[in-house]
Amino acid sequence: MNDVVAALLEHRAFVISGHRGPDGDSLGSALALKSGLEQIGKQALVVSPDAIPSAYRVLPGIETVRRVTDLPSGYPVAVLVECSSLERSGLDGYEGRLVLNIDHHSKNPLFGDVNWIDPGASAVGVMIYRVLQSLGVETTPDIASLIYVAILTDTGSFRFSNTNPEAFRVCAELLERGADPAFLATAMYDNMPAAKARLLGRALTSLEYESAGSVALMSLPYEAFLEYEGEPDTEGVVNHAQAIEGVDVSLLFKEMAPGRFRISLRANESADVAAVAAVFGGGGHPRAAGCTIEGDYATVRERILGEVDRRLPGGAESS
Amino acid sequence: MNDVVAALLEHRAFVISGHRGPDGDSLGSALALKSGLEQIGKQALVVSPDAIPSAYRVLPGIETVRRVTDLPSGYPVAVLVECSSLERSGLDGYEGRLVLNIDHHSKNPLFGDVNWIDPGASAVGVMIYRVLQSLGVETTPDIASLIYVAILTDTGSFRFSNTNPEAFRVCAELLERGADPAFLATAMYDNMPAAKARLLGRALTSLEYESAGSVALMSLPYEAFLEYEGEPDTEGVVNHAQAIEGVDVSLLFKEMAPGRFRISLRANESADVAAVAAVFGGGGHPRAAGCTIEGDYATVRERILGEVDRRLPGGAESS
Repeated sequence: MNDVVAALLEHRAFVISGHRGPDGDSLGSALALKSGLEQIGKQALVVSPDAIPSAYRVLPGIETVRRVTDLPSGYPVAVLVECSSLERSGLDGYEGRLVLNIDHHSKNPLFGDVNWIDPGASAVGVMIYRVLQSLGVETTPDIASLIYVAILTDTGSFRFSNTNPEAFRVCAELLERGADPAFLATAMYDNMPAAKARLLGRALTSLEYESAGSVALMSLPYEAFLEYEGEPDTEGVVNHAQAIEGVDVSLLFKEMAPGRFRISLRANESADVAAVAAVFGGGGHPRAAGCTIEGDYATVRERILGEVDRRLPGGAESS
Repeated sequence: MNDVVAALLEHRAFVISGHRGPDGDSLGSALALKSGLEQIGKQALVVSPDAIPSAYRVLPGIETVRRVTDLPSGYPVAVLVECSSLERSGLDGYEGRLVLNIDHHSKNPLFGDVNWIDPGASAVGVMIYRVLQSLGVETTPDIASLIYVAILTDTGSFRFSNTNPEAFRVCAELLERGADPAFLATAMYDNMPAAKARLLGRALTSLEYESAGSVALMSLPYEAFLEYEGEPDTEGVVNHAQAIEGVDVSLLFKEMAPGRFRISLRANESADVAAVAAVFGGGGHPRAAGCTIEGDYATVRERILGEVDRRLPGGAESS
């Protein structure tokens, strides 16, 4: 952390970027850092490589975020938060900057001039909080709310295994500094678009089970998306199958075009769905992955189930 | 708290009971107190007025809980946790006991011989944690897990407005003492019965909206329950409608018998659904209520919507 703090003290103007598909941790961390830097007389601009999902419109300062393509000159130092690569920040086309790389993923490839990676941090927001404390920044209600959203969302409302004592201690302090936990949780989680609720309902009514109930399958046929206005949002739908008693692996088949299935996979500790997705040219993490397969539904279903079965406990490639 | 601690130190054997419809706070608090009392050489038995939902089978010591009707003699002191009345503990038929009443609801009617009510506590689990600290009890991994579940569930995974700095600070300590946040959250929340997932899907596909999208309605017809084995579980289903963008009030119509609708109501701060339910002989809280109306669906729907509309912002009885 000390190198990051030194670089922030040394320079005057910073462009801060999160990653593609901005989320609560990248946006909350970036905006909290901007606010803190401004408090000590620095200049800072937050840019985003992608459009910002509507849930985050409650974040203080969100209206100042520019698209990375609108970045003006005059920001010789870039701070990248929670980016697995320079490309993921959208700043890869802008050479000649000093890059500070702040992340909590152990596989970060250390692409920065200064790299600070702490896999022990629940969220990058926790790391930014430490930086701001070190810089002597006062935790305003805005900063408290921003760091709180970073921790809240990256721990899945304190349900994921990255939830740790430091995250809880920091949250205690943030509440004392003005973060409103119920308001922010409602803004983050109670905002499902009506059309998405219908898609979720349709997916749940399609539920079927294989392997004695340990594999749950849901499907959304092409016509379900036809009636959807705009970009269909199925983020999180597969998690509802994963939350069913006895389910180890969940699959959601989305027929994005006739005969073309985008498949979302989730697993608990008992199987590696990234390996399943990789067979079909997809990718992800052991617990959450995705791939695309073309064919008729019955064939696609059979092909992927075969790969899932081999990796379930007792299957050919189970450990 | 001091009177409670004094009474626990003075006596030797305790029966501990939570409330009807046991939940994470009442069970976690009761079992943590039992474990702590045993650690300092006391005798304690946890009883429950109702059967224990399966989610709580992961609680350490849950196998020792007896139904209140099986209570043996020899427990002259009763500790009631999170009970709004003696009747709610199931211990009202057992006269002659010293009653310690520990609760965090401000409306607790102080029915005990010793009453300790702290509306500032996120959960009764936090109060029990303070008692155990005061008694010099070591926070074992079992006690840590029990108190953690109490706080986790009573704050809705830290999303409700009772989430406060003390809750977060206590949780930090509980994690250091061996509570596993991801394991416990999965046990509490990722356990939806498969049949309930189908009911939820059916309810979501029935979604319709009134009052420019501010009122969401879902319905489950009688035949949806006919195919359900055992007692139909619709707990929490209405919350999925309440989580939709722009929705202020949600209604779930459950046709439990032909022409007999049990209605669950939820609201944000903009309306008082307890007042709506009261019109039809039901009850609840301003944000969560229920009632039963007989008639055909169209009529029932119209009657209750009329009452809801009057209480929406701009309606006849809005404030």
